[in-house]
Amino acid sequence: MRATIIHGAGDVRVETVPDPKILEPTDAVVRVVSACICGSDLWPYQSMPASEQGARIGHEFLGVIEDTGSGVEGFKPGDLVVAPFVWSDGTCDFCLQGLQTSCRHGGMWARDGVDGGQGEAVRVPQAAGTLVKLPVGEDSALLASLLSLSDVFPTGYHCARTAGVNPRTTVTVIGDGAVGLSAVLSAKRLGAERIILMGRHTDRTDLGVEFGATEVVTERGAEGVERVRELTGGDGTHTVLECVGLIEAIETAFGVVGDGGTVSRVGAPQYDQVPMDFGVFMRNVTLTGGVAPARAYIPELLPDVLEGRIKPGKVFDQTVALDDVAAGYEAMADRTALKVLVRP
Amino acid sequence: MRATIIHGAGDVRVETVPDPKILEPTDAVVRVVSACICGSDLWPYQSMPASEQGARIGHEFLGVIEDTGSGVEGFKPGDLVVAPFVWSDGTCDFCLQGLQTSCRHGGMWARDGVDGGQGEAVRVPQAAGTLVKLPVGEDSALLASLLSLSDVFPTGYHCARTAGVNPRTTVTVIGDGAVGLSAVLSAKRLGAERIILMGRHTDRTDLGVEFGATEVVTERGAEGVERVRELTGGDGTHTVLECVGLIEAIETAFGVVGDGGTVSRVGAPQYDQVPMDFGVFMRNVTLTGGVAPARAYIPELLPDVLEGRIKPGKVFDQTVALDDVAAGYEAMADRTALKVLVRP
Repeated sequence: MRATIIHGAGDVRVETVPDPKILEPTDAVVRVVSACICGSDLWPYQSMPASEQGARIGHEFLGVIEDTGSGVEGFKPGDLVVAPFVWSDGTCDFCLQGLQTSCRHGGMWARDGVDGGQGEAVRVPQAAGTLVKLPVGEDSALLASLLSLSDVFPTGYHCARTAGVNPRTTVTVIGDGAVGLSAVLSAKRLGAERIILMGRHTDRTDLGVEFGATEVVTERGAEGVERVRELTGGDGTHTVLECVGLIEAIETAFGVVGDGGTVSRVGAPQYDQVPMDFGVFMRNVTLTGGVAPARAYIPELLPDVLEGRIKPGKVFDQTVALDDVAAGYEAMADRTALKVLVRP
Repeated sequence: MRATIIHGAGDVRVETVPDPKILEPTDAVVRVVSACICGSDLWPYQSMPASEQGARIGHEFLGVIEDTGSGVEGFKPGDLVVAPFVWSDGTCDFCLQGLQTSCRHGGMWARDGVDGGQGEAVRVPQAAGTLVKLPVGEDSALLASLLSLSDVFPTGYHCARTAGVNPRTTVTVIGDGAVGLSAVLSAKRLGAERIILMGRHTDRTDLGVEFGATEVVTERGAEGVERVRELTGGDGTHTVLECVGLIEAIETAFGVVGDGGTVSRVGAPQYDQVPMDFGVFMRNVTLTGGVAPARAYIPELLPDVLEGRIKPGKVFDQTVALDDVAAGYEAMADRTALKVLVRP
């Protein structure tokens, strides 16, 4: 089959790789119907050292089951399924408490002999714990929103949930990328009445307003902090959803969060240290968040998507064929695309 | 009157200062019955540059009201009261939500013309919001435990509460100082069944065991982390109560906290940056805590103290007269005393 291989910064290729097959009784093989490129895929796309061998890439996909191992109950060939961006057994104590990203028998796509999502098919380990069946056909008009359940939307939702967003909390969302916009939609879903979106790409913040943002702040850094403070009578907001992953975004987050408030971070950290000094201590600010256990949220979010109450798939603004995946990476890196859907 | 003045590292003196009097209608004047020395007082005691003028010090006290301003309702001369370590109006939005440390009209003792607690008397700003009446006499046998409500016990309690300690959480407490031991007592009060205390002063950890610690780990640093991991089947604990304030303690905290767990810090930070890197992100670890709004917790904790169910005052193991306060500082700095009570 064909699959995406990254050979280094700016060097993404589609190559022929072995067809996936069942290796363990808990495996399934899924033919990919749609996949996508994640903002986090851009980190290696911008910095990976050149490699002749290269590495598989992609961790968001939706597809049709082609085969299942003898131990996979509840799924059969022909089922349409979505895969969260971490695979997990669904039975260990971490999975049972909704922290599937720490599953005792789980792991990441595109590593250690497991396929990546940006290819024609994927061997899915721990299939019964990992996959979620979708009660629609592969020609459904909802497919983009259903694909968003694999990562980007639950990541925004994890941010809002761990921050404690509710109808009584004001919210600042930092970042107008696909995760930031998903965080806006999530905060709105959780009842927030005031959502300040910090971003400066009008086409993106326009979608943010459609998703529920009540104000847009285009300034960045100290000016951005000052503007949010002005808008909130000097107080900042109860919760801040950090959806970038750069230290500047974390600094902005601590600048705009109110006393006793919470910063939640879901942007994959491109930093090692966080400035939680005496001043932050005196203000009782909490830092939470982390990698989203998407699998935990899919059952909760799926009905809203199926019934059309939310349309998180609107973050996809470009579709490429698998053979053109390199153009998709380029478009996202250049910011000419917000988020790219890939069709094998 | 006489009051404690710190003139620099290792230089604490008792000097004559102006008698406090009512300056604002919201003031009260309190004659101090007992005060104490805080672990955080040791930071300036160890590092303050020499100063001829010096500065007032002390922020924990209990005493008898001598006079009240015309706007102070609910208190009268002769009332025994305890003061939390931050004064606050009790009416602003932050106070009403239990974050009196961020009160819009509040402040710290021993600053900006406000007396410190380590003296014969104190002018109490925002007295009606700040003080809590105690239904005992000044000769009560409970006085030490009641004094502990001004800071050390609510600080440990804030740590346990913000960490989310409950009967289903395992707990590690880092630090066997008076705050750490108060955190043990607090975790026990909140129902924790397993409390691992990290500390290496046997007399202190013995009191920790009396307060509810189920295991004591004497190793520090990487060895200490390894030991706690061993004790917990490799998993660490759900909550970690960091009661030291040094970066090494924070590093230990991240080492012993389990995936999806919470570190709460109440040790006044002697650091600016916290290592919350990609690994911490992938484990979904939260960092919370901060300066304790003691005023919020006193009404909740007071009945347990009055009825003898908890004895947080056991952290006091030495009493000095006000004139001997310098010896009290020396004893705490030398660790020959755990916590020193001061009687004017």
